[in-house]
Amino acid sequence: MTILSGERPGEGNMKEERYEIRFGGSGGQGIILAAIIMAEAAGLYEGYHVCQTQSYGPEARGGKSRAELVISNMEIDYPKVIRMDLFLAMNQAALDAYFFDFKPDGVLLADATFVEQVPTSRSLLLPFTRIARAQLGNEIVANIVALGAVGVLCRKVSMQSLEKAVAGKVPAKFRELNMAALRAGAEAAAGVDLSFLPRSIISEEEEKEV
Amino acid sequence: MTILSGERPGEGNMKEERYEIRFGGSGGQGIILAAIIMAEAAGLYEGYHVCQTQSYGPEARGGKSRAELVISNMEIDYPKVIRMDLFLAMNQAALDAYFFDFKPDGVLLADATFVEQVPTSRSLLLPFTRIARAQLGNEIVANIVALGAVGVLCRKVSMQSLEKAVAGKVPAKFRELNMAALRAGAEAAAGVDLSFLPRSIISEEEEKEV
Repeated sequence: MTILSGERPGEGNMKEERYEIRFGGSGGQGIILAAIIMAEAAGLYEGYHVCQTQSYGPEARGGKSRAELVISNMEIDYPKVIRMDLFLAMNQAALDAYFFDFKPDGVLLADATFVEQVPTSRSLLLPFTRIARAQLGNEIVANIVALGAVGVLCRKVSMQSLEKAVAGKVPAKFRELNMAALRAGAEAAAGVDLSFLPRSIISEEEEKEV
Repeated sequence: MTILSGERPGEGNMKEERYEIRFGGSGGQGIILAAIIMAEAAGLYEGYHVCQTQSYGPEARGGKSRAELVISNMEIDYPKVIRMDLFLAMNQAALDAYFFDFKPDGVLLADATFVEQVPTSRSLLLPFTRIARAQLGNEIVANIVALGAVGVLCRKVSMQSLEKAVAGKVPAKFRELNMAALRAGAEAAAGVDLSFLPRSIISEEEEKEV
């Protein structure tokens, strides 16, 4: 088991540090559950302020679903994503639809099982669904495999906090399966050094607005 | 089965109509799931713009949980509750903690099983957990019983939309139990005429701000 050292909220004179994650996938891929578990890990067990949202409307037709999570060391004024630090895309349609508001040093984490084209060089493709199928015998936990990778990459939550949050959200008889999925995802992401990713090429003007 | 006639989003020159619901309960009472199902019923099946949020932070310690839902005929700028039209409180602690931002003509819907004191005369107490236990043999669906009542009272979603949303969120083997819970809650609320509730007494100044 990997223990991650999260940056916890400090005391005293604090500067606001927002960390923003968007989760995109199709209806059945468990994106909202993944976002909720991540929110509970960061909010209940790491002591961050957290706001987790999902929107439905005309754009939700056709099976795409999106959830968002803002993690902050201070109370959150605006609860939706302003600039993504991390975008988890579980398939190509969701990636294409929700790839906006991306930070120059953001990271796109995509399920290589269903994503072929990535719009940024700051991408990390890991085969979440294939891992779920091959290592765990059940595609249904692909979202939890992805969550393990999100947990490692965002560096805001320990694996212990994620495990507690997962345990609180899945039925007891599926607990072991989900724990194994979480660990498989964390292991897939553990060896990745994001500092090797090139910085996104964006116009100077756009960058100044950031 | 009750079919409700929802007010659907119109065409042409629209005035923004926000309808805001807060759900409060303890950790295990399934408040977030109820909010998500209601969001899907209104957003996916009734064509409203919907934004559903939950926040975690220092106030979430101690087992209280809160979820919010904004339903609008137009795109939603601010995704959290500004003034509650409807507040579902599943127990006394959540009611006490989250009773604020209440509209003068809002409605407090509380689980009479666990709530004894209500801070407004615009209250409707229905024993959701007792109904779940007595009629359905399982307290775990108290949240879905409550959701049935929320669906009837808010008049934004048809029972058919709620049933579709429930079916999409619960495992197949518990579908019938949840459908029965939804109907039991809808029936408990069906006979209630909210127009008999007195208007909340609030100061003139506060009312002007609304």
